[in-house]
Amino acid sequence: MSTLFADRMGNLQKSFIREILKLTENPNLISFAGGLPNPNFFPVTEIAAATADLLQQDGTQALQYSTTEGYLPLREMISARYQKRHGLNISPDEILILNGSQQGLDLIGKVLLNQQDTVLLERPGYLGAIQAFSLYQPRFATVPLEADGAALAPLAEQLQHSPKLFYTVPNFQNPSGVTYSAEKRIAVAKLLQNSSAVLVEDDPYGELRFMGEDLPPLYSYRPDNSVLLGSFSKIVAPGLRLGWMCAPKHLLDKVIVAKQASDLHSNYLAQRIVHRYLQYYDLDAHIQTICDAYGQQAALMVSMIEQYFPPEVQYIRPEGGMFLWATLPEGMSAMTLFELATRNNVAFVPGQAFYVDGGGDNTFRLNFSNASEAKIEEGIKRLADAIKQLLHEQTPVAMATVA
Amino acid sequence: MSTLFADRMGNLQKSFIREILKLTENPNLISFAGGLPNPNFFPVTEIAAATADLLQQDGTQALQYSTTEGYLPLREMISARYQKRHGLNISPDEILILNGSQQGLDLIGKVLLNQQDTVLLERPGYLGAIQAFSLYQPRFATVPLEADGAALAPLAEQLQHSPKLFYTVPNFQNPSGVTYSAEKRIAVAKLLQNSSAVLVEDDPYGELRFMGEDLPPLYSYRPDNSVLLGSFSKIVAPGLRLGWMCAPKHLLDKVIVAKQASDLHSNYLAQRIVHRYLQYYDLDAHIQTICDAYGQQAALMVSMIEQYFPPEVQYIRPEGGMFLWATLPEGMSAMTLFELATRNNVAFVPGQAFYVDGGGDNTFRLNFSNASEAKIEEGIKRLADAIKQLLHEQTPVAMATVA
Repeated sequence: MSTLFADRMGNLQKSFIREILKLTENPNLISFAGGLPNPNFFPVTEIAAATADLLQQDGTQALQYSTTEGYLPLREMISARYQKRHGLNISPDEILILNGSQQGLDLIGKVLLNQQDTVLLERPGYLGAIQAFSLYQPRFATVPLEADGAALAPLAEQLQHSPKLFYTVPNFQNPSGVTYSAEKRIAVAKLLQNSSAVLVEDDPYGELRFMGEDLPPLYSYRPDNSVLLGSFSKIVAPGLRLGWMCAPKHLLDKVIVAKQASDLHSNYLAQRIVHRYLQYYDLDAHIQTICDAYGQQAALMVSMIEQYFPPEVQYIRPEGGMFLWATLPEGMSAMTLFELATRNNVAFVPGQAFYVDGGGDNTFRLNFSNASEAKIEEGIKRLADAIKQLLHEQTPVAMATVA
Repeated sequence: MSTLFADRMGNLQKSFIREILKLTENPNLISFAGGLPNPNFFPVTEIAAATADLLQQDGTQALQYSTTEGYLPLREMISARYQKRHGLNISPDEILILNGSQQGLDLIGKVLLNQQDTVLLERPGYLGAIQAFSLYQPRFATVPLEADGAALAPLAEQLQHSPKLFYTVPNFQNPSGVTYSAEKRIAVAKLLQNSSAVLVEDDPYGELRFMGEDLPPLYSYRPDNSVLLGSFSKIVAPGLRLGWMCAPKHLLDKVIVAKQASDLHSNYLAQRIVHRYLQYYDLDAHIQTICDAYGQQAALMVSMIEQYFPPEVQYIRPEGGMFLWATLPEGMSAMTLFELATRNNVAFVPGQAFYVDGGGDNTFRLNFSNASEAKIEEGIKRLADAIKQLLHEQTPVAMATVA
């Protein structure tokens, strides 16, 4: 590596997913690769009305510099939503508005991580977190993710080694779609009680539940040494680029100082727009509309998979969110499948990028939120054909050609 | 420091200016302390019209996720403005949209700085840059700022020690208001030619010139190893939170990867709004309106200073921007003056925070962009009274009471 760049840059590759997304610009290709919410449900008219009123009534204020913490009435609304949804008391002073919850991961890394500190991740884990934390040059350790959440014995074992933080996405995880069960939440919280690790709970999808019951965040069991991240990207719209972090004051104060040095404050106009939108409209009803649609899209994908995929392919049925996780028989390569599938004009994300310590070669992620029913039907058929080809052909495509 | 936090956090204090701004919430106080543009010139109606059209015509797209690089047509407009203003060829591929140009400083630190690398700053220097770079734990070195730019002999000397970067604000610097002369730009560029230091040129105020002639950026003499930062905050509105970075491809590619890990991308709705605003309206005419007003405000502040300040107080007459810099006689304390002045219901920023290596105790910064003519008149009178009190009283307020 050239001496121009800092050592930390050696740890970071351009996102493979980002590179995949470039491949998917072919208009004939059906892509389950991205992680986009369905734009049909963006409340465009409502955002337009809220913005027009805001700019007319308080435009000068809404276009000025603002505080690092973020617009207080918006933080109050976020606080009230946690109270209503989980009976959780999070003071507006314990909430910081972010440029999307991804920024929270960067700030947590900045504030907490010395080089060689251990970051404990789920396996597979969210790629954006791996990338954000990588820049602070930690060691990564992982805990396998089971169908109901992190495996307890490995988690207990890893917590013995004093990781600096444990990063988890307990609801409809990206990439696996896994949701922690009620029992597992309690068990994980109990293990964390005896550890000094900071819990970093990322919950961008939590309100997008279309099956089962809303469960309390892990944060609710251990608020004194935890961080909870949320986002408007999936429940309002991602182009507004607003997320938030909840953390106890002693921790959040440091994050605020780091954020001030990083970008002064989050987009103030967008904060005021979202606040106005929440004042005027029923967000819960809007979320219900999204959940109903995503539930149907997920159900359709599942039924197409059951109908067309060979039985050797396993999958996890998601209770919410945007992703479905599939596993090929041991020894098969999802990268090879990707090559075959894109020839069939269908794309997905091979799982290996989500395994920070290697493995996962036979896994892949399917997004169901951003494809029409017709595309889900046709795309899963095409993908099933590619899988059958992979399973039955004795001459798999050489890895070298897709590296 | 608690072991909870990363070592880098030990370097960073909450901004003193931020603390001062809290003091200035007293409605009777006239504040020259902040660094806010004059909200009377925010194009609220035009932004409202641009936003309404955008959301009606392309709302769904404008609310979706976007690319890390930023909206290409907006980058094309920025490129065209450099071409028109300076005959400078900066390709849209060499431009990255930021959450305000402050984010550029953080990303530059992230991409370039190893611990103990040397960052060369102007003395006094921009506090936001000191804060952003501090988190990467560099050494700071400084070059004194003269009335026409950085002192050449000390700059030559410092460049011998291979600093990683040289950070400069050549137009109407914050805090000093100093502008580099044409000759000094060429001389500084010549010194940089023989150095491997990355030039980081921050130009948030460059278009706010109300005296003299627009001069080429240092970047134009040495684009291969330089970064140029710009911002819409002072020429459109800061609440839109949009700035940009120009850099050669080999450098910008790394910054893009770091930005992707930090927050995925900048606010897309705001990018689309600004693009639409620039399409519909004459930004140059709007900037002229701002310059005319700031020029009058600066001229009024200067004439009030000449009329009321004791002749022992020196000041630099700014050619543009938002700040005026004053120096008390050697040995006098601007912190003590701050204490006296706030009792007189007028505030400013004592200069010592801008001196990363100590000193500057007798300097202070006045903002003229965000005060009415009446407040400038009354505020400078009050401040002159406080200065006279400081100069003539033999019992200055003990430093301990203002620490």
